[in-house]
Amino acid sequence: MSTVKQPPDPESDARVKAVFDDIRATRKTDFVNNLWRTLAYDPALLERTWAEVKQLMTAPSHLDPLTKELIYIAVSIANACSYCVHSHTAAARAKGMSDAQHAELLAIVALAAKTNQLANGLQLAVDPVFDAANPFQA
Amino acid sequence: MSTVKQPPDPESDARVKAVFDDIRATRKTDFVNNLWRTLAYDPALLERTWAEVKQLMTAPSHLDPLTKELIYIAVSIANACSYCVHSHTAAARAKGMSDAQHAELLAIVALAAKTNQLANGLQLAVDPVFDAANPFQA
Amino acid sequence: MSTVKQPPDPESDARVKAVFDDIRATRKTDFVNNLWRTLAYDPALLERTWAEVKQLMTAPSHLDPLTKELIYIAVSIANACSYCVHSHTAAARAKGMSDAQHAELLAIVALAAKTNQLANGLQLAVDPVFDAANPFQA
Amino acid sequence: MSTVKQPPDPESDARVKAVFDDIRATRKTDFVNNLWRTLAYDPALLERTWAEVKQLMTAPSHLDPLTKELIYIAVSIANACSYCVHSHTAAARAKGMSDAQHAELLAIVALAAKTNQLANGLQLAVDPVFDAANPFQA
Amino acid sequence: MSTVKQPPDPESDARVKAVFDDIRATRKTDFVNNLWRTLAYDPALLERTWAEVKQLMTAPSHLDPLTKELIYIAVSIANACSYCVHSHTAAARAKGMSDAQHAELLAIVALAAKTNQLANGLQLAVDPVFDAANPFQA
Amino acid sequence: MSTVKQPPDPESDARVKAVFDDIRATRKTDFVNNLWRTLAYDPALLERTWAEVKQLMTAPSHLDPLTKELIYIAVSIANACSYCVHSHTAAARAKGMSDAQHAELLAIVALAAKTNQLANGLQLAVDPVFDAANPFQA
Repeated sequence: MSTVKQPPDPESDARVKAVFDDIRATRKTDFVNNLWRTLAYDPALLERTWAEVKQLMTAPSHLDPLTKELIYIAVSIANACSYCVHSHTAAARAKGMSDAQHAELLAIVALAAKTNQLANGLQLAVDPVFDAANPFQA
Repeated sequence: MSTVKQPPDPESDARVKAVFDDIRATRKTDFVNNLWRTLAYDPALLERTWAEVKQLMTAPSHLDPLTKELIYIAVSIANACSYCVHSHTAAARAKGMSDAQHAELLAIVALAAKTNQLANGLQLAVDPVFDAANPFQA
Repeated sequence: MSTVKQPPDPESDARVKAVFDDIRATRKTDFVNNLWRTLAYDPALLERTWAEVKQLMTAPSHLDPLTKELIYIAVSIANACSYCVHSHTAAARAKGMSDAQHAELLAIVALAAKTNQLANGLQLAVDPVFDAANPFQA
Repeated sequence: MSTVKQPPDPESDARVKAVFDDIRATRKTDFVNNLWRTLAYDPALLERTWAEVKQLMTAPSHLDPLTKELIYIAVSIANACSYCVHSHTAAARAKGMSDAQHAELLAIVALAAKTNQLANGLQLAVDPVFDAANPFQA
Repeated sequence: MSTVKQPPDPESDARVKAVFDDIRATRKTDFVNNLWRTLAYDPALLERTWAEVKQLMTAPSHLDPLTKELIYIAVSIANACSYCVHSHTAAARAKGMSDAQHAELLAIVALAAKTNQLANGLQLAVDPVFDAANPFQA
Repeated sequence: MSTVKQPPDPESDARVKAVFDDIRATRKTDFVNNLWRTLAYDPALLERTWAEVKQLMTAPSHLDPLTKELIYIAVSIANACSYCVHSHTAAARAKGMSDAQHAELLAIVALAAKTNQLANGLQLAVDPVFDAANPFQA
């Protein structure tokens, strides 16, 4: 049940086909998941979204690929995005996440949410030493 | 400006002093930040909260210390906890996070929030292959 | 699967029937959706909720009807309310939202969520010029 | 720093004065807090908002006044509304909330947020017995 | 559909069995719901989570058991945790919550979310009198 | 107080200068607000973020410029992003938003958040007619 109809033959649109081909080549699989199949209803949105995901999540960078997926899952849990939790948990497993690492990720996300509530409930003043412009941090 | 008064002399309470001493010993610093100074208004809550933070964030585990801080920051941003964003960004820097890694963290958190909205707006069906109980994942 | 039972014959309650009749007359349809059928378990809550929705969303006002639905969808996506995303996307379509407008709505909601994370992650100071009481805005 | 200017003499508007008088009479105090002073920029929004707060939070009902404030604080913490956390914590104290009850409230809000993350991270299926329409609940 | 596989025979693990036995004894029922059956994939996380829930939600304390469940539901609604809304609504009913109390809970959660948006939209300054350290509160 | 230091002379970096020049030209003002001045700590992130904001918010499209700002404010309120609420409320005013439209925007955001809570609290089943793939919608 979705708010838009998946195009029945999305790859008949050349722009969509180009994106799907790039997804398959980048991920080394024939499988294209529902996010992309549905975004095909607007080729421009599909192109921009895939370009950004590809650049940030697959190009070599300052964080390793698994760490990036763990961060992605953490945000998706906090935002209650069911689809994203599923798709990125699968992606993290494909990049080597063990059951023990998954359980630890959930425990840390849960702990962070817990202390977030405490700090918001107490309305704590930020310690001046945490200010990045503070000379004490130099 | 806070919703509770910080106890003026928190370490006159033996339970509070024991927690503060453990914070200082664990972190190898004399500095005890406002979260703990304020939680001192309820020693039991202070003890339980510190025990959990210490166990998950400082004990050797399946994720490295910096990755754990990055996950913590990600959740704190998504939950709009100003205090926690400040304190854990400082903690991540203390554990070696570079400016480039920080910028990449922010970019991934922002991207995840973005695709979370797309998926929630489209109300995507979860691909069956993402189900952990699915034999296709075996 | 719901947390309350829908009353089997809600319109046997005169207050419920009056609300349902008003919904049908206002919307020019026989269809009454599940939100109202379920809220019928508490006629006072049903009456107050419908009165507010009717007043804000259907009376002539300073914003046009489609703009109001777009705002409603945006909030519902950000709050991860699956039911509301579905019902208000359908309502926006009934008021003329095109596929291109829907895709643009999703893109803007996604962009806003993205920069919300950046600003919360950076903990930006608000520029004084944005203060409504600031003489620079005069 | 606000997004709207507080009217300099709000009670020169008869509708605003009537609401402020009712706030003072209902709360038995001369103090009118910033939420109402600022909402005075739109008398209709001020009237509707106060009417709803007065009805739900001050009229005798099925929940006692302190319980209602605790629920209000809990939601305000979860939604990261700094102003509301402050104003309703003060209101709860005025209705008798002790420091021990406040600390317990924070602990429960924090625990709920924690298990919310676990459940969202695990994407748990809802047990059929929790369905209100389930005959097992009869 | 879940992100982890439920262990097929969780109680073959002695630590899991001990937790399940304690859940059954504490709740006086043979039923163990999916949250615990799924957390069994990581016995340490299961143990810690149950210990905290048991301590805060079932031990005699400064808030009565039903009030604690209402707070739990409120947070779960605000965080859009479908599973938790279901499980804690059922728990609140088991502790005596009437339909009228449930409807009032929903109305207050909805009102709080509403004024949270108003306050966040207006970016209200917190009244100095709400500061817990303010001598006016003495 | 921020988590990163604003570069003291950001436009000494040619990539930053190019973005700032484009911001000034696009907005027809010399003013560059703190979001961009701070993102200057990572020129690549600055470039990508501005490019996306410019494309979606300033290019002619299927929604008018003021509607786009109203959607942006709505999401920023729901996500409790103080900075974004301020900056986009100022932007909406610059594009002609009246006080009456602003008050109506806040009222609709508040109403949406309210019914989001009701729907999430009731855990409503989505009416089949809302499914975009449903032949009843044809």
